[in-house]
Amino acid sequence: MRRIITISREFGSGGRELGKRLADALGIPCYDHEIIKLIAKENGFDERYVANMSERSIDAAYPLTIGHRFALDAMPVMEQPIRVAVSQREILENFAKQGDCVIVGRCADVILEAYHPLNIFVYADMAAKIARCQERAPEGENLTVKELERRIRQVEKGRRQFREMYSEIKWGEKEAYHLCINTSGREIKSLVPALVSFVECWFGPGEE
Amino acid sequence: MRRIITISREFGSGGRELGKRLADALGIPCYDHEIIKLIAKENGFDERYVANMSERSIDAAYPLTIGHRFALDAMPVMEQPIRVAVSQREILENFAKQGDCVIVGRCADVILEAYHPLNIFVYADMAAKIARCQERAPEGENLTVKELERRIRQVEKGRRQFREMYSEIKWGEKEAYHLCINTSGREIKSLVPALVSFVECWFGPGEE
Repeated sequence: MRRIITISREFGSGGRELGKRLADALGIPCYDHEIIKLIAKENGFDERYVANMSERSIDAAYPLTIGHRFALDAMPVMEQPIRVAVSQREILENFAKQGDCVIVGRCADVILEAYHPLNIFVYADMAAKIARCQERAPEGENLTVKELERRIRQVEKGRRQFREMYSEIKWGEKEAYHLCINTSGREIKSLVPALVSFVECWFGPGEE
Repeated sequence: MRRIITISREFGSGGRELGKRLADALGIPCYDHEIIKLIAKENGFDERYVANMSERSIDAAYPLTIGHRFALDAMPVMEQPIRVAVSQREILENFAKQGDCVIVGRCADVILEAYHPLNIFVYADMAAKIARCQERAPEGENLTVKELERRIRQVEKGRRQFREMYSEIKWGEKEAYHLCINTSGREIKSLVPALVSFVECWFGPGEE
């Protein structure tokens, strides 16, 4: 059975790191920012535009038409967010067809439902998320705790909106996932062996 | 580090079975109905009364004074639910002090917070819970699907109310737990090796 693992995550929960480490431990690819790069490339959009759109609803994406490059004449502005969504679905399905993989974000849990993915949600309490964001802040970025909290809520609101395009089960509601992991106060890498074991239990032994 | 594992669960999700199997795999005791038996014994209550009270709020417990035996004269009716709650806390703390264990239900996740338990929530979709209840129905019990669904919702409502005595984070909200597992369509025993691995990752290697 093909092992497609999707990781949905709260901002600052370490979900992206967990996805990457899990994929490495399983010896399979992890798709994360690659998806945005591909969508941008295939449609001639700016990556920042796609990144922004990919985590917001189509409605919210309409005003964000700056940054696209050579697609402007060929594609009416109103069609762009839809094009991103279509392209995203095609790219995710291609990944799933190619073989076992971990996919971070992009509503892959819903979009790839037909491939019976194992859907994991990674979360943490606000203090832990703020601490992780502070640790990983690029040099020169000195956001206050309040500002970080606002940013976390903003990104998560975008993810929630984006998911509403695909499913009536809300983003982050445990019913949408098979496994939800709270990473508060945990080192991400300490959780990886357990997740590998979980993947093995879920799908049975690998095909190799 | 002492390994206290609490299992909270939706009715029919297989949480109790998971707790028992996990404890067996770890070679540690699992406390479930034992807790009710002990509370009943120590206070001279009927087990059915305690079982009912242990999953409902104190308010809801007041009318349920049938079944108690020799405590009636010694203890005013109004004090009984409080006595159950006090007794339950003492018993849970004694278990935690004795050594590693798995505890199913009874809000052990909140009551034993000072012992830093690993808190697991087990859930499933309604169809899966109904199917599990049907499989496990005692001979002669022929509830319809509608009746089973009503019973499931009723029991879960009781658990939700009971938890409100202890915590403002609601029963079943993932924020209250470290790990939430969806058992829909899964054989409980197939998940046990992954949980053993999770416990090992969480607490580090055992003390033996």
